[in-house]
Amino acid sequence: MPEYRLHCFAQSGNSYKAALMLELCGLDWEPVLVRYFDGATRAAEWRSDTNAMGEVPVLEHGGRKLTQSGVILTYLARRAGRFGPENEDEELDILRWMLFDNHKFTSYFATHRFMLSLAGKPSDPAVLSFMRGRVDAALGVVDTYLAKHTFLVGNRATIADLSLAGYMFYPNAETGYDLSLSHPNIHAWRQRLVALPGWKPPYDLMPSALPAT
Amino acid sequence: MPEYRLHCFAQSGNSYKAALMLELCGLDWEPVLVRYFDGATRAAEWRSDTNAMGEVPVLEHGGRKLTQSGVILTYLARRAGRFGPENEDEELDILRWMLFDNHKFTSYFATHRFMLSLAGKPSDPAVLSFMRGRVDAALGVVDTYLAKHTFLVGNRATIADLSLAGYMFYPNAETGYDLSLSHPNIHAWRQRLVALPGWKPPYDLMPSALPAT
Repeated sequence: MPEYRLHCFAQSGNSYKAALMLELCGLDWEPVLVRYFDGATRAAEWRSDTNAMGEVPVLEHGGRKLTQSGVILTYLARRAGRFGPENEDEELDILRWMLFDNHKFTSYFATHRFMLSLAGKPSDPAVLSFMRGRVDAALGVVDTYLAKHTFLVGNRATIADLSLAGYMFYPNAETGYDLSLSHPNIHAWRQRLVALPGWKPPYDLMPSALPAT
Repeated sequence: MPEYRLHCFAQSGNSYKAALMLELCGLDWEPVLVRYFDGATRAAEWRSDTNAMGEVPVLEHGGRKLTQSGVILTYLARRAGRFGPENEDEELDILRWMLFDNHKFTSYFATHRFMLSLAGKPSDPAVLSFMRGRVDAALGVVDTYLAKHTFLVGNRATIADLSLAGYMFYPNAETGYDLSLSHPNIHAWRQRLVALPGWKPPYDLMPSALPAT
């Protein structure tokens, strides 16, 4: 059995953060499909045995079960010696961006995408519009920052970039954004991530949880 | 001048997380009022000089400017030797709860409260209702967890508790929740935090940013 097992599904950008890290570090890992759209994470045994927060991804390694993508990225950076901080200042700066990502960037971008293209039913237009406003504000903060920076922390890719980029590689038709037109600095930054040796898009790294139609 | 300066305002529960930590640790600190409701954090110089993310709190210490409440809590726990992890497992577990807090707990609870009682104009009922649904889900996760745990990590208060409790001490009229009735395990937990030596509520620790009427 591979050393690392990632409970995940391809539509989950939070899963992708961990899957891409495992792949870029060349670690021995396998994806384990979570049938999210069939309700797997809402089941009582998932909540009691695997993750009280009811979310994916979950990483199994050496008897541990780790949840929250930011925790998994931090853990893997230490084990692999890649994409982590070089000193405390960088460590705190990486944490700062990962918290912003969870609070305002991935949080709204992923929810907006889900409502737009994955929920399976139309969303309330007022809620969708509110959410898009939040996404625009967060994208604006990051695009402005990346106008003057190659990566988020230091001059190299770190787990901060892998966290914020979790939902940056899904098709425009899913996300509702063509970032190459709307946010050119974000687009240039994600192209720098694509250029990393071993990079793959989400649907190439993990199995789909959508039921066959 | 005090050793620590916290740019904050009393209505900000994210500021309160840092202010309460400073106070509980008995550190030499002073609050510096940010006139949020007059637009201080939207000003160009705030974004360029202080915080590209446009948020409070900001902690000044020894020439550093730290932003994101989770970063400030992590930094202070190390400096004060209080409320931090005792080993890597606890460190990762604290990070897990702080990320959940930023992603789903404080994030929605604070936004719902702002729309309900601080925005100064009525919110769209559909958006408010959507937000309340998200708050209810997050409160449910934490209340269920606290049915079997005294604190979030280990058997003592840590910065994970101080993070999630950031908005738990505002008046019911502001938050729209009477947690003593709706979520008894969360209520019992916050009472354990109130019992910590030196605890004070937000409006006693920081100046108000609301313009005098």
